[in-house]
Amino acid sequence: MTPSERLAALEMELPSVAAPVGSYVPATRTGHLVLTSGQLPMGGGQLVCKGKVGKDVTVEEAMAATGIAALNGLAAAAGAAGGLDRITRVIRLCVYVNSAPGFTDQPKVANGASDLLVGIFGDAGRHARAAVGVAELPLDAAVELELMVEVTDG
Amino acid sequence: MTPSERLAALEMELPSVAAPVGSYVPATRTGHLVLTSGQLPMGGGQLVCKGKVGKDVTVEEAMAATGIAALNGLAAAAGAAGGLDRITRVIRLCVYVNSAPGFTDQPKVANGASDLLVGIFGDAGRHARAAVGVAELPLDAAVELELMVEVTDG
Amino acid sequence: MTPSERLAALEMELPSVAAPVGSYVPATRTGHLVLTSGQLPMGGGQLVCKGKVGKDVTVEEAMAATGIAALNGLAAAAGAAGGLDRITRVIRLCVYVNSAPGFTDQPKVANGASDLLVGIFGDAGRHARAAVGVAELPLDAAVELELMVEVTDG
Repeated sequence: MTPSERLAALEMELPSVAAPVGSYVPATRTGHLVLTSGQLPMGGGQLVCKGKVGKDVTVEEAMAATGIAALNGLAAAAGAAGGLDRITRVIRLCVYVNSAPGFTDQPKVANGASDLLVGIFGDAGRHARAAVGVAELPLDAAVELELMVEVTDG
Repeated sequence: MTPSERLAALEMELPSVAAPVGSYVPATRTGHLVLTSGQLPMGGGQLVCKGKVGKDVTVEEAMAATGIAALNGLAAAAGAAGGLDRITRVIRLCVYVNSAPGFTDQPKVANGASDLLVGIFGDAGRHARAAVGVAELPLDAAVELELMVEVTDG
Repeated sequence: MTPSERLAALEMELPSVAAPVGSYVPATRTGHLVLTSGQLPMGGGQLVCKGKVGKDVTVEEAMAATGIAALNGLAAAAGAAGGLDRITRVIRLCVYVNSAPGFTDQPKVANGASDLLVGIFGDAGRHARAAVGVAELPLDAAVELELMVEVTDG
């Protein structure tokens, strides 16, 4: 199955890509790599999960939010690549978790994105990953993430 | 106009590159990519903006500091590339904002770098960008940023 | 001397690579680049340094922990590259320091990794580096780091 077929089988679809507020773009391409801007858990033009994980937000809610941010990241990457099925491999995922004092389950939160990527790309979705707990995030988002993927010209 | 002509038109010039304090270098090149070390808002060998944004430092001050750090980053990248005009595209900008509790305007702070990059490189300056709020930064700097750019051999 | 000879001369050896807990991998390769997942100071399957640097952990302890994390990162990179001596250059090091309020010596902590990399790779170990202070880290680790290295097919 292609990534877009797997996405459909998961009954998911790529969201539209939000226009960045500033002098930047959703994603850039260099050679066969596409790097995305930091992705927030936006849905329908709204931030769907805000606050500190471990206090305002549960791990389960944060995992779901991280999956939403990952889907936004794939939409951004697909836009730069010329389509989701041009993405051949996920190289790097970096997850920034807006963490309450003492919250150390960042890897669990990041699994919300990692599992989705493997669900869509299979083994090619297995990536290098960093997950860290940050002090604050834009708009008080619960999570932000960056993706780096490998693409083909089809 | 070339990037160096635009820089001159903005009445700016590249600062000299500070020698790193440690076993690292201002920037590395791999293939057609140059990655910089984390850049602080240094001017004339001094940190020009320190403290927490949203408490000790206003958004406007932090935006200016981010522009200064970006200029330092371009100087580092130009050093590795063999000149500013060898930089053909800005690929990634990551801005770490030393954030007071509750400060969530990291994207506005990051615009201080993004706008400068577009001012110097035009559309080729539009980059993928992440902006996050961190707990502490080296020397209590208000901001730190990393650049990844694409370069040509001329 | 090759990197593995230098490592032996330092009376060090690469640790075994811990299996990631989740849908990710220790490192990925794209072209001639290898990127590692976030590395913690694990030794013998245990986290060897936890807590906030500047409060629970001294700078010296954190430097040692960062060296351990770097060695884990090299093991992960060597696994993806087909051996330590296939690594020809260290491109980027990003060090996240679990920082107590007011702790701003992240660069000193990062030297624990930078010095080790130069000890093993010589000038080819000099890298671009970012060091930031984060609010929390997985398992309450004192440090986490990512490596990007250049590799050859031998």
